[in-house]
Amino acid sequence: MPLRVVQFGLGPIGRACARLVQSRPALDLVGALDLEAVGRDVGEVLGGEPVGVLVRDDAEAALAAWRPDVVLHTTSSFLDRIEGQIMTCVAAGAHVVSSAEELVWPFERDAGFSERVDAAARRAGVAVVGTGVNPGFVMDLLPVVLSSACARVERVDVWRSVDAGRRRGPLQRKVGAGLSAEAFREREAAGGFGHIGMVESARVLAAGLGWGGVEIEETFGPHVSDADHETEHVTVRAGSVAGIHQTATVRQGGAVRATLTLTMAVGAPDEDRVLIAGDPGLDVVVRGGTFGDTATVAALVNAVPRVAAVRPGLRTVLDLPAAAVGGRSRSVRFGACSR
Amino acid sequence: MPLRVVQFGLGPIGRACARLVQSRPALDLVGALDLEAVGRDVGEVLGGEPVGVLVRDDAEAALAAWRPDVVLHTTSSFLDRIEGQIMTCVAAGAHVVSSAEELVWPFERDAGFSERVDAAARRAGVAVVGTGVNPGFVMDLLPVVLSSACARVERVDVWRSVDAGRRRGPLQRKVGAGLSAEAFREREAAGGFGHIGMVESARVLAAGLGWGGVEIEETFGPHVSDADHETEHVTVRAGSVAGIHQTATVRQGGAVRATLTLTMAVGAPDEDRVLIAGDPGLDVVVRGGTFGDTATVAALVNAVPRVAAVRPGLRTVLDLPAAAVGGRSRSVRFGACSR
Repeated sequence: MPLRVVQFGLGPIGRACARLVQSRPALDLVGALDLEAVGRDVGEVLGGEPVGVLVRDDAEAALAAWRPDVVLHTTSSFLDRIEGQIMTCVAAGAHVVSSAEELVWPFERDAGFSERVDAAARRAGVAVVGTGVNPGFVMDLLPVVLSSACARVERVDVWRSVDAGRRRGPLQRKVGAGLSAEAFREREAAGGFGHIGMVESARVLAAGLGWGGVEIEETFGPHVSDADHETEHVTVRAGSVAGIHQTATVRQGGAVRATLTLTMAVGAPDEDRVLIAGDPGLDVVVRGGTFGDTATVAALVNAVPRVAAVRPGLRTVLDLPAAAVGGRSRSVRFGACSR
Repeated sequence: MPLRVVQFGLGPIGRACARLVQSRPALDLVGALDLEAVGRDVGEVLGGEPVGVLVRDDAEAALAAWRPDVVLHTTSSFLDRIEGQIMTCVAAGAHVVSSAEELVWPFERDAGFSERVDAAARRAGVAVVGTGVNPGFVMDLLPVVLSSACARVERVDVWRSVDAGRRRGPLQRKVGAGLSAEAFREREAAGGFGHIGMVESARVLAAGLGWGGVEIEETFGPHVSDADHETEHVTVRAGSVAGIHQTATVRQGGAVRATLTLTMAVGAPDEDRVLIAGDPGLDVVVRGGTFGDTATVAALVNAVPRVAAVRPGLRTVLDLPAAAVGGRSRSVRFGACSR
C-alpha cells in the first residue's frame, strides 16, 4: 500500500516535491495545503491533468479528511513561523518531512520550540525531520556517513561550490551576483542575504561525530569575481560581486574540529568536497557538484518513506535509515524498498 | 551510561575491534568470547594491561553473566557457521553487529536462516546487522546514501580499487599476487579465492534503490600486472597475476542497472568511485580510496551505538541511522551523540 502524502506548501520547491511524489508508485499524493490556489485541483496547479484532489488552506480539517501518513512541509525556513503548522500535522498523526532549514537542527536555536514539538510528536507516535540538500545532506549528513568508516576523526573540512550562473534567475539575484561591493554591503546590512542553514549543518556534523561542547563561528561575505561572466539573468564584471562566500567553523576547546565553506557565485566551479583527517583519512570529491535545485527536492521526497522508521519525536537527518526496506509493517518483507 | 559490549571472536579483526571499543568512552568492553585464549585477561590478549575481564568460550552462560547491550561478532563469514552464535546472542537479549559478509544481505542466500533469526530477534526485541567496509559501506551503503540526493536513478556504477601491496602480507597472498596464471586457476578451482560479499553488496544496493526483481551476475578472475612490483611480501612480474578482479552486475528486466567492480591487486591504484546516472547525476571519487583494514574495524565499531535504534529483527546497514543521537533512552537528550 502506498504511503499517503500531503504536500504542505505549493511554492516552487513544494510543487516540484509534489510532482516527484506523483511519479513514485510507493507514494500517493492525497492532499495539498497552500494559501493560494485554494479550491483548485492540485494536478492542474502542478501543470498536469486534474487528479481529484483540491488544494485547501484549512490544515486541521483537511488533514483529518485526508489522513496522510506523511506531510511534506515546504512553507518557510524559520521555526517561529512553522511551529503551528508542524503541530497541526503532528496532531493529525502524520510524520513530517520539512524543508525548513532551521528545523534541520533546531535544538540550540529554540529549546522551547524543540521541547514542545518533541513532546507532541512522541505523544502522537510520529517523527518530525527537517532535511534538504543543504542543510540536510552535502555538508552534514554526507560527512557523518563517510566518517562511519573512520576509527578516529581529528578534523573534517567540507567545501561546497556552486556555479550560480547555472541556476535559476532568482538564485543568481539572491546571491548578489552583479552587485557592486557597496550594494552588497547595503543589502547585507538590511538582512537580505544568507544561505540559511550553515549553523544547522555545523551542528548536525558536530553531533554526528560525537563532539560535545562545541562553539560555532560563522562568516559571511561577497565572492568577488576574477573574470567577466554573463548569464541570461545577470552580468558580472571582474572585480565585482559574483555571489556569496560563507563559512562555519566548529571549535572544541579552542581547537578547530571542522570547517564548512560554501561558495555560491556566478562562475564558481561546481564541486563538493569532504576531507576527513583521521584514521583512515578520507578525501571525497563530488565532481561537478550536487545540483541543488533537483537534489533538494530529491532529498525531501526520498526522506518520506524513511521517516516512518524513525523513533517518534523531533528528530534529524542523522536518525533516518539509509533506505526504507521491508515496508511499513512490523513484519519483514524482504526485498525491494519503498522509494 | 556506556553501552555494554561483548567481543565475540578474537581473530585479527576481532582484536582490532575490541581495542577500538576500549578507546571509546561511550562503550564498555564487558566480555570477550573466543575458542582460544580462554581464561586469559582480554586486556592482555589485546596487548595491553589486564582489565579484569577473562575470555570465555561458553557463550550462553557468559552472556548471561556479562549482560551486554551489543555483541560485536567477528568469527566467520558464513551463515551456516554463525547461526548458533547469533541465536545465542539474541536469546541473551543483545543486539548483534557482525562482520560476517553473508549476513550483510542474507535473505536470498538462506531464507530459512533469515526467517529464524528475524523471528528470534523480534521476539527478543533486538536487532541483528551485518556490516563492514566491503560489504557494508563502500559499494553498497555509500551509493545508496548518495542516491538520496537523486530524484531519479537510471544506473549506478561502483569501482573499488585497492593496492594490495600496501596491505598486510596475508591479504597479498590471499589475492594471489605473484601466482602464475595456471596456479591462480588451480587455486580458484579449489575454491581458495573470492572476496566474499560482492553479491551481498549488489543486493543491498538494489534494495536501497528500490529495484525489485533483479538478477545478479558475478565474474571473478585474475588481475594481470602490466609492470613489475615488489613488496616486502611478494614479487609480481609484468604479465603475471597481481591480484583479483571481481564484478557483480545488477539487471532488471534485462537492462543493466548497476555494476560493482572490485580490484585488489599489487600495484593497483587506491581509489573508490561511485557514478550515478540520474537526475541529478553524481560522480563521487574517494581519492586514495578507503583503507580497508582500519575502515572495516571502524564500520563495525561505529555500528554498535547505532544498532539499538534499529527496529528489532534481522536488519541491514540500510536500517542503521547515520549516527546515534540522544542516547539510548526514549527521552531526547539534545546534543552530542554516543560514538
